[in-house]
Amino acid sequence: MTEENEQTAKTENDDMMVSEETYMTSGVHIGTRQKTADIKDFIYKVRNDGLYIIDVKQTDKKIKIAAKLLAKYDPSKILAVSVRQYGQKPIRKLGEHTGITVFDGRFRPGTLTNPNSDNFFEPEVIILTDPLADMQALHEAQNIGIPVIALCDTNNETKYVDIAIPTNNKGRRALALVYWLLAREMQKAQGKIKSDEEFAVTVEDFEAEI
Amino acid sequence: MTEENEQTAKTENDDMMVSEETYMTSGVHIGTRQKTADIKDFIYKVRNDGLYIIDVKQTDKKIKIAAKLLAKYDPSKILAVSVRQYGQKPIRKLGEHTGITVFDGRFRPGTLTNPNSDNFFEPEVIILTDPLADMQALHEAQNIGIPVIALCDTNNETKYVDIAIPTNNKGRRALALVYWLLAREMQKAQGKIKSDEEFAVTVEDFEAEI
Repeated sequence: MTEENEQTAKTENDDMMVSEETYMTSGVHIGTRQKTADIKDFIYKVRNDGLYIIDVKQTDKKIKIAAKLLAKYDPSKILAVSVRQYGQKPIRKLGEHTGITVFDGRFRPGTLTNPNSDNFFEPEVIILTDPLADMQALHEAQNIGIPVIALCDTNNETKYVDIAIPTNNKGRRALALVYWLLAREMQKAQGKIKSDEEFAVTVEDFEAEI
Repeated sequence: MTEENEQTAKTENDDMMVSEETYMTSGVHIGTRQKTADIKDFIYKVRNDGLYIIDVKQTDKKIKIAAKLLAKYDPSKILAVSVRQYGQKPIRKLGEHTGITVFDGRFRPGTLTNPNSDNFFEPEVIILTDPLADMQALHEAQNIGIPVIALCDTNNETKYVDIAIPTNNKGRRALALVYWLLAREMQKAQGKIKSDEEFAVTVEDFEAEI
């Protein structure tokens, strides 16, 4: 590789969807005081107060990968779930802008596995806001054998998770930013919009109320 | 969930693509004497001779997930690689039956990252036979931000791997069986064949010569 090409490759690699500052302002990098072995590769450092800090470059990369992959599916066959409250508005917004099916709130056992269940649904791929809080959905997805994409904080295990997006998955603003980016990148990959500017909704629109 | 439904769910869960005996006869379950933290969830037990044994039910599940996911892509945009010899014939056969692009043998640096490279190629997803032996391809895939599917043995780390298929990735017959199943399931998911019986090629056809 010539020096010039190396330069090009590097620049491309550094080309993030939003600036590191934007990630930081939303607290995407703020993990927890716990660190699992599964998530160690995504940790940038541990802060003096004991909080593990997530490498947002990897967050950025994984959101892009997930969005491009999801764009291959019929959106109605993609299911996004969030038991915890701060993820609920972001996934509803994601659904609005991409056509993804959304189950916010309690995930009723049997939803994916019991054909007699009222809200029985057979997705081809699933997005979890937190593999721990959304454990029921995780187990059922594993049971029916579909790919699992999950936002994973530093305290999460990635067992049964296929694509882990390392991020603060508890903060109101962090969840808004991650799902806003996922929606924007999916729309781009689906060819619905051509540029970032055409995505006319703001991150704030994705934020849950306090 | 009623008892009857639970029964149905269980039966479905146990519905493997080939029997456990077939996996065992091909040595898919035979890991190495090393065990990484990344792969611990896929390990069934450690044998008296110190070999870690892989849970083939999980191998089966992950092959299905990978095949269904790959079927969403234009096959020519999928790249399968294998630096090690025993994986080369299986991936060539996989390419023959599914249209996947195949790079067998040495993976030249810059293949995915340097547009001036003779064999420059921009896949949308990549399959690695061994993340350790195929490390160059793994790093370049990570660099360009595409999903990575990899056959992972008990000694492998899964850093940068999105979908890990736990399997013996060194044995001649194990590699043949895993890639044969991947080819068959992809053809089914693509609608090219309707049943397993229509897949007229044998596992032996996928085996490298000794």
